Amino acid sequence: MDAVRPVFYVSDGTGITAETIGHSLLTQFSGLRFSTDRLPFVDSADKARDAARRIRSAGEAVGLRPVVVNSCVDPELNRLLAESGALMLDIFAPFIAPLEEELGQVRNAHIGRAHGIVDFDIYHRRINAMNYALAHDDGVKPDYSEADLILVAVSRAGKTPTCVYLALHHGVRAANYPLTPEDLESERLPAILRQYRSKLFGLTIDPVRLHQIRQERRPDSRYAQLDTCRREVAQAEAMLRREGVEMLSTTHASIEEIASRVMEHLGINREMY
Amino acid sequence: MDAVRPVFYVSDGTGITAETIGHSLLTQFSGLRFSTDRLPFVDSADKARDAARRIRSAGEAVGLRPVVVNSCVDPELNRLLAESGALMLDIFAPFIAPLEEELGQVRNAHIGRAHGIVDFDIYHRRINAMNYALAHDDGVKPDYSEADLILVAVSRAGKTPTCVYLALHHGVRAANYPLTPEDLESERLPAILRQYRSKLFGLTIDPVRLHQIRQERRPDSRYAQLDTCRREVAQAEAMLRREGVEMLSTTHASIEEIASRVMEHLGINREMY
Repeated sequence: MDAVRPVFYVSDGTGITAETIGHSLLTQFSGLRFSTDRLPFVDSADKARDAARRIRSAGEAVGLRPVVVNSCVDPELNRLLAESGALMLDIFAPFIAPLEEELGQVRNAHIGRAHGIVDFDIYHRRINAMNYALAHDDGVKPDYSEADLILVAVSRAGKTPTCVYLALHHGVRAANYPLTPEDLESERLPAILRQYRSKLFGLTIDPVRLHQIRQERRPDSRYAQLDTCRREVAQAEAMLRREGVEMLSTTHASIEEIASRVMEHLGINREMY
Repeated sequence: MDAVRPVFYVSDGTGITAETIGHSLLTQFSGLRFSTDRLPFVDSADKARDAARRIRSAGEAVGLRPVVVNSCVDPELNRLLAESGALMLDIFAPFIAPLEEELGQVRNAHIGRAHGIVDFDIYHRRINAMNYALAHDDGVKPDYSEADLILVAVSRAGKTPTCVYLALHHGVRAANYPLTPEDLESERLPAILRQYRSKLFGLTIDPVRLHQIRQERRPDSRYAQLDTCRREVAQAEAMLRREGVEMLSTTHASIEEIASRVMEHLGINREMY
């Protein structure tokens, strides 16, 4: 068994940027094992010294040099962290010089610690969008006039997590409409959705996977039976295809990928928060 | 008025990694205006050529060289994108060589496109945690035995978005308990929470800000009055302090920062999804 190499995401803020890029980098190496730790809010010399000690010990404990993916901007903190002996990957450093040259300005590390500044407007938009998603989840209160988009699918195909993700990360007002057995029998788009065609996006899913998910929710119910799942998915796909509603299978897609593809198809361009 | 420089986040996947680091970089330059566009799923020569044309036109339209923050791994696609004439910032390139040397392995770009691989276990954990957060939102169904943590605060102090974020991004089962006027009058931790002291974390908020938020939800209600907000916040803070529950103000914190600080304080270490 190979040893597990310690990886630390170190930041003077939340460490989300460091962890995001660090995770992307590590997945490009196969067959190796990593243990990952987040060390957020390292914003003083004392904390940097503590972090360096912890990183060094973790490396000594397994006999492998640790990797530090680091987004601290203060050079003094970075110097203290480097005393850990780890491989230091500073995720901002390589891009600062070319950006400074192109933009004709020296960066000011203090003005924009990622995720550190809070814009009340943005906070508001996220929260309002999330409240909207929760209020319009599973067709409970179907007023779609304010929706940016409406996800249409059978129950448990991935609508709710996608809507919540879209709200939290893009401030998108995402509603969802669960296709009921009655809708599916009718073979037509439910009346309430017809006036919002340009906002619709369909999700589908492998019936076996759907069966597993429903089985966990309501074990051995008619709702969870493989036959029911097969029939509902076939009916939903046929209906959405006939009505010309774009569709995506969630079976092998992450929530991020589903959200990204939905926005791309509907031409919704929002910054990520 | 300065011109608005076009910035593109280009990726063969969702582009989340590129946008995360690109956004962090741009916030380090002040007084400049950027327009940002996400170009996800650029995974063929044709799409790369289309993207390059679009990037070039955007630059020509405003007379400024565009910036491309790029996470495509195929060198041929990168070459085509560079024909846009933009400043190309490849977010993986600077780190690959040092990692390859340290890990003794050549990276395999295809195995790990960030957010491209879907692990059913992870998907499950996220969805289950989110269902948990929604089911345990605002004390509707208070069984906290399975909670990883419980956020305690007055209504509208930021509990729900934090819980949903913790679920989606870390698979953490985060419940929340809204302090009612009765709880606040009693001056003691509600009985239902006492056995879970080690899972508790308090949120507080500036009363003026709380008043604004509540005002939007129930305009001119007693609930939204500034006096009510002032009293509730003072009572909640006094009670949590007396009971020794750690507390954080959400007034100037992003959802990411609140989540990160809560996890750090409670010693919860989970990877980010």
